[in-house]
Amino acid sequence: MKVLVYGSGQLAQMMYLAAAPLGVIVSAVDVFTETVVDPVSKKPTGVSLSQAIYDASAITIEFEHVPEHLLLEADKSGKLYPNVASILAGADRVREKVLLSKNKIPNCDYLIINHVDQLDGVVAALGEKVIFKASRDGYDGYGQWRISTAAELLALRHEFSLLDLKKVPLIAEKMMQFEREISLLGARSKDGRVVCFSLAENLHHEGQLHVSVAPITKLSDTLQQKANDIFATLATSMEYVGVLAVELFQCGEELYVNEIAPRVHNSGHWTQQGCSTSQFEQHIRAVLGLPLGSTEVIGVSAMVNIIGCTTFNRDLIGIPNVHLHWYGKEVRVKRKMGHINVIADSHANLGLKLKQLIEFLPLEHFPKLEGEATRLQKSSGFVY
Amino acid sequence: MKVLVYGSGQLAQMMYLAAAPLGVIVSAVDVFTETVVDPVSKKPTGVSLSQAIYDASAITIEFEHVPEHLLLEADKSGKLYPNVASILAGADRVREKVLLSKNKIPNCDYLIINHVDQLDGVVAALGEKVIFKASRDGYDGYGQWRISTAAELLALRHEFSLLDLKKVPLIAEKMMQFEREISLLGARSKDGRVVCFSLAENLHHEGQLHVSVAPITKLSDTLQQKANDIFATLATSMEYVGVLAVELFQCGEELYVNEIAPRVHNSGHWTQQGCSTSQFEQHIRAVLGLPLGSTEVIGVSAMVNIIGCTTFNRDLIGIPNVHLHWYGKEVRVKRKMGHINVIADSHANLGLKLKQLIEFLPLEHFPKLEGEATRLQKSSGFVY
Repeated sequence: MKVLVYGSGQLAQMMYLAAAPLGVIVSAVDVFTETVVDPVSKKPTGVSLSQAIYDASAITIEFEHVPEHLLLEADKSGKLYPNVASILAGADRVREKVLLSKNKIPNCDYLIINHVDQLDGVVAALGEKVIFKASRDGYDGYGQWRISTAAELLALRHEFSLLDLKKVPLIAEKMMQFEREISLLGARSKDGRVVCFSLAENLHHEGQLHVSVAPITKLSDTLQQKANDIFATLATSMEYVGVLAVELFQCGEELYVNEIAPRVHNSGHWTQQGCSTSQFEQHIRAVLGLPLGSTEVIGVSAMVNIIGCTTFNRDLIGIPNVHLHWYGKEVRVKRKMGHINVIADSHANLGLKLKQLIEFLPLEHFPKLEGEATRLQKSSGFVY
Repeated sequence: MKVLVYGSGQLAQMMYLAAAPLGVIVSAVDVFTETVVDPVSKKPTGVSLSQAIYDASAITIEFEHVPEHLLLEADKSGKLYPNVASILAGADRVREKVLLSKNKIPNCDYLIINHVDQLDGVVAALGEKVIFKASRDGYDGYGQWRISTAAELLALRHEFSLLDLKKVPLIAEKMMQFEREISLLGARSKDGRVVCFSLAENLHHEGQLHVSVAPITKLSDTLQQKANDIFATLATSMEYVGVLAVELFQCGEELYVNEIAPRVHNSGHWTQQGCSTSQFEQHIRAVLGLPLGSTEVIGVSAMVNIIGCTTFNRDLIGIPNVHLHWYGKEVRVKRKMGHINVIADSHANLGLKLKQLIEFLPLEHFPKLEGEATRLQKSSGFVY
């Protein structure tokens, strides 16, 4: 069996490596050149895109910003999973918000800004602490803006007036006071079965994920169930097939959806060593209509991203239960180069192991690690 | 980093899949065409053998019967691990026996037969139950012969007289009364560090491995230590680098070496899911001079070979902790097509899980499975 993945980065590569033992060969599409490539070497396979679509038993994506004409072409084959609407919901914050509201899923209060005049109502509706986000990524002049006072909003008015808000609206979102960012990954099969992985706790720095820990500390069955229910509602409503990531804010025992990603996700990389079935294998199983795998955890995991850095001591793989995943890319500032999965039998021992790991890493590239190691060491949480 | 593997079968493929996350790219040599190929697709990479030797950080093998001129050519690079003598000891039973005797490692009593006249002394030396084996495989007219009486030996004399015993001697070996066949896999690093995996128990049928279980039932620390000591003596004496498999007969608390394989081995496939580091990753680490990984077990494992059969129900992957490894080869009688790794938390539960698995398999191709499932179910042995 063959699976074609749009996008040829590390996620396609890890799908390839997870699929091969099942006798499934994954090819990738470089969406910029529209060439079919080997997901590991990135070399063209010599097969045309139309032939690869024809040959595939299933077609999927590794990122949601695949050019729409390619998605529609793939969709014509009847083999694209997840469906186009799900992919677009992940790529467009307006669609995403509509989806969440339609399903009555708690999320941050928001307004959609199609015209600068709507800015006048923002503070009254959302308060003074607001984040503005482009509804779609990759447009010149767009980005994210945070305001804390009405005066700051006034200062942005001119900048926003230069944008084509009819074409690409902004989302104005109330900045939530949350305790932590967590994520739930799960999968839905073609016959509607839903399975969820354990909740992961995510530490970001300058907008990038740095560390995930799964299961989360202070995990209650209620919280996991609440997240699973959100997942099942969303995935079912979208008629989703494959692995879906849901990013959440936790406030007390309440969960608010921050955003969704219609694909395997960085905050699920821990499943490669920390779970009976990895998110990559799970996604391949789902899109091919194979039975889903067990999501039972194997110990307590941390996933540490290696970002913009190649100068670490690779002997870190000598620490028991420390696993390197290297993507083989050229180094650039803020580029995800690889990740490290660390497994232990309790949160406290995971903290200890991260302390060992720190000896092998240039800490300026791992700003979240030491604090997290200390926090986990003190944790009396989950024991496997 | 690049590693070149002589041999392009499933072992090279599984090395490729295990090495990729470390940022190590494995290429394979089809030793019949002397072409460098991708270990998964088996397609030529377009790189010449001499260039691939030049590019490699390490060179290794997936089977011991690599033509000697290729081994010697590879060895000239100074990058071949394990060394040529170790590979030849695995390919030649005379060298193997000399190695074992030199290191005073218990093995089955034997005679080397260079001339038919030596047959006269066989029964006196070894008794009437004897197995004759070609010292090297792949020669016309050679094979294995078992005798139970002196009369049977007499009947073979003519057949043996037609062989060129000077060039390819026979080994006459006393047939041992053993309780079970077990194997020890381990690795030795370039700096002489030795680590061993847990002992595996192997069930054969018509000369082929069908099922391995690891750790073995009724495992005592003494027995594991005895096996580890044999491993360390052998690997150190051979100046071995990489993963080495030692097949053993257990008689009471005594261990006798049956044979060695200077490579990753079918009886170590359970390590893919059952161990912190798989034998494939361990071998790659060793030959590249990277730190060896932990050999801690993750539960209790069974490895079930899929031999000469494609007609099983692939939904078996829906059983929790059952993992398929499919090699993507064309089916032939007695050909290893893939294997299934099954993990549980005790031998008894492993037996239960094998019973579940049986529902998905055509049992005529898995003659050892049902009996082993029953035996394990009754086992009060190892609990993880």
